[in-house]
Amino acid sequence: MVLDNLETPSVIVDLDVMQRNIEAMQKYCDEHGFDFRPHIKTHKIPEIAHLQLQAGAVGITCQKIGEAEVMAAAGIRDILIYYNIIGPAKLERLSRLAKRVHLSVAVDSSQVLQGLGEMTDRENCRIGIFIDCDTGLHRTGVRTPQEAIQLVKEIQTYPNLEFRGLSTFPLKDASGSWFEQALGAFRAQGLEVPYISAGSSAGPKIAHQLQGIRGLVAGTYVFYDRSSVEIGLTDLDHCAARVLATVVSRPSDTLATIDAGSKTLSSDFGYMKDGNGYGYVVEYPEARIFSLSEEHGQIDFSGCSRVPEVGERISVIPNHVCAMMNLHDTVYGVRRDRVEAVWDVAARGKVK
Amino acid sequence: MVLDNLETPSVIVDLDVMQRNIEAMQKYCDEHGFDFRPHIKTHKIPEIAHLQLQAGAVGITCQKIGEAEVMAAAGIRDILIYYNIIGPAKLERLSRLAKRVHLSVAVDSSQVLQGLGEMTDRENCRIGIFIDCDTGLHRTGVRTPQEAIQLVKEIQTYPNLEFRGLSTFPLKDASGSWFEQALGAFRAQGLEVPYISAGSSAGPKIAHQLQGIRGLVAGTYVFYDRSSVEIGLTDLDHCAARVLATVVSRPSDTLATIDAGSKTLSSDFGYMKDGNGYGYVVEYPEARIFSLSEEHGQIDFSGCSRVPEVGERISVIPNHVCAMMNLHDTVYGVRRDRVEAVWDVAARGKVK
Repeated sequence: MVLDNLETPSVIVDLDVMQRNIEAMQKYCDEHGFDFRPHIKTHKIPEIAHLQLQAGAVGITCQKIGEAEVMAAAGIRDILIYYNIIGPAKLERLSRLAKRVHLSVAVDSSQVLQGLGEMTDRENCRIGIFIDCDTGLHRTGVRTPQEAIQLVKEIQTYPNLEFRGLSTFPLKDASGSWFEQALGAFRAQGLEVPYISAGSSAGPKIAHQLQGIRGLVAGTYVFYDRSSVEIGLTDLDHCAARVLATVVSRPSDTLATIDAGSKTLSSDFGYMKDGNGYGYVVEYPEARIFSLSEEHGQIDFSGCSRVPEVGERISVIPNHVCAMMNLHDTVYGVRRDRVEAVWDVAARGKVK
Repeated sequence: MVLDNLETPSVIVDLDVMQRNIEAMQKYCDEHGFDFRPHIKTHKIPEIAHLQLQAGAVGITCQKIGEAEVMAAAGIRDILIYYNIIGPAKLERLSRLAKRVHLSVAVDSSQVLQGLGEMTDRENCRIGIFIDCDTGLHRTGVRTPQEAIQLVKEIQTYPNLEFRGLSTFPLKDASGSWFEQALGAFRAQGLEVPYISAGSSAGPKIAHQLQGIRGLVAGTYVFYDRSSVEIGLTDLDHCAARVLATVVSRPSDTLATIDAGSKTLSSDFGYMKDGNGYGYVVEYPEARIFSLSEEHGQIDFSGCSRVPEVGERISVIPNHVCAMMNLHDTVYGVRRDRVEAVWDVAARGKVK
């Protein structure tokens, strides 16, 4: 199928650009001896996860069990679920995964650890534990190396839990001193830190400068987005995912309305400021998507030399690609003007 | 199943509150002699659409063809697609719908009208046309009554298109004078306006005070949300939909992090201001959801007398319920502490 025959709005992924992004991040990890576990929350598509593994990733990272279930069903065998897993139903699902794949989870409290420990005893399965460390975001993670040490000691009381290392998200400059202190504190107690894993598509700016990092997690890098450009991670040419949209109305001489709104592009600004609008219009760089309703995007073309007519197509690089992808059931992989892949976004909406 | 056994995050709908909302809006329409066509974009669930029809609605409103296809497949027979339909693939899908249901679409330009007219000739099917009028939003709609008259004359050149009336979204105070002028201009040309349809859950504040309104469209009213309360349409007791979430981490003495983030609640503020946070925590009215990442919500409880522990459940009324519902594949209808319905959100993600 040629691109022109795709109905709009459609999410298209440039296969060459995506492959270049995959290879560049893998090359960075290889050069610095990092294990790479790409975070599949960005694409949620098993075939893309397999491309990342083929490029050299040692496994994948998921955020929710539901994502991991989809990826395990697609044959992926090394999965880190970077999340505190709580409650009997979720623990039972986790035990089923643990019997099929090499599984690790992140933990930051005794309550969560206890649930996991008792489940692995009961179900006789094995789970690796990363201690999630709060090195600045204050979202999850133990606050101090002492809390991490306490959790490691608790892990040792459960025969089927294995301490795999420390981890953090997102990796920041401040993460370095946190982990330095932690390494010292562990050493003082005669405890080993077998591994440090750090997450963020900004990893390549920092990770190799820090001591002790052995694993990297990154998600957005596979497609990048307007926010990635805004914070200096890449440029627009490396943005692999776009929304193809059609002008459906012309409310004034300078305004046009497209068939992509918040249910297509998402209202998520990512790292963009409000005033920058809801995405970057590739064909009209001076255009500003100033408002989204659910199925309409309102665009101001007053800064452009011409304004598209009703029926004309444009393409939009989203502010936050992870939020955008999660709205869609189908994504099209394209090379030049041809559709070469039609993907189910199989882990879309797996919030449990 | 009891509510306590539902995994989190889950969207729950209070069946009694929803039914009350459905009946109250229908009662308003009945009292004023308005046809009511609820907009299903809010719930996207066929069974709820049927409840709205059973209460007295004459048909439903959809935004995209994909939504209408789902609703037609569920047996619904009067559908207004409030959208400019463009392009051969979409027109072919529309023709298939037109042969099965009493179908109307909104139009605001000659280009769109021409596509519809030629398609109905070719496919020998019949479609009703509402002329979409821009009475203030500047998103879609003809700008002047003269443009509407021009389109009506063009409709008359296509034997299978039927002019059903004028319509607008959203209904505002200014809509009244727009339609008054339009009625005069049509009369002066010897043309009849058979019907005026107006959309918005705020309709009951205005519609009955305006001349000529015969049909009402509203979506959000079925569940309402925090934005509806903010703009004075209802109160919190009428908000029927909530997200049930679990505290998964306690980053500090006053902060807690839940397992619901932007992929569960959506980043859409609706009519809320940024500073108000990403939803209303029912059990902790003073709490503030100050940040969402994709699968985590960060909540500040410093204004509350206690802070929930890891494992405790809370429920959140979303800022914009339509955006939130569209993220979920399954929604649970509850009465008191029992789950009485498990619904597929069958028209979720139907952006085409």
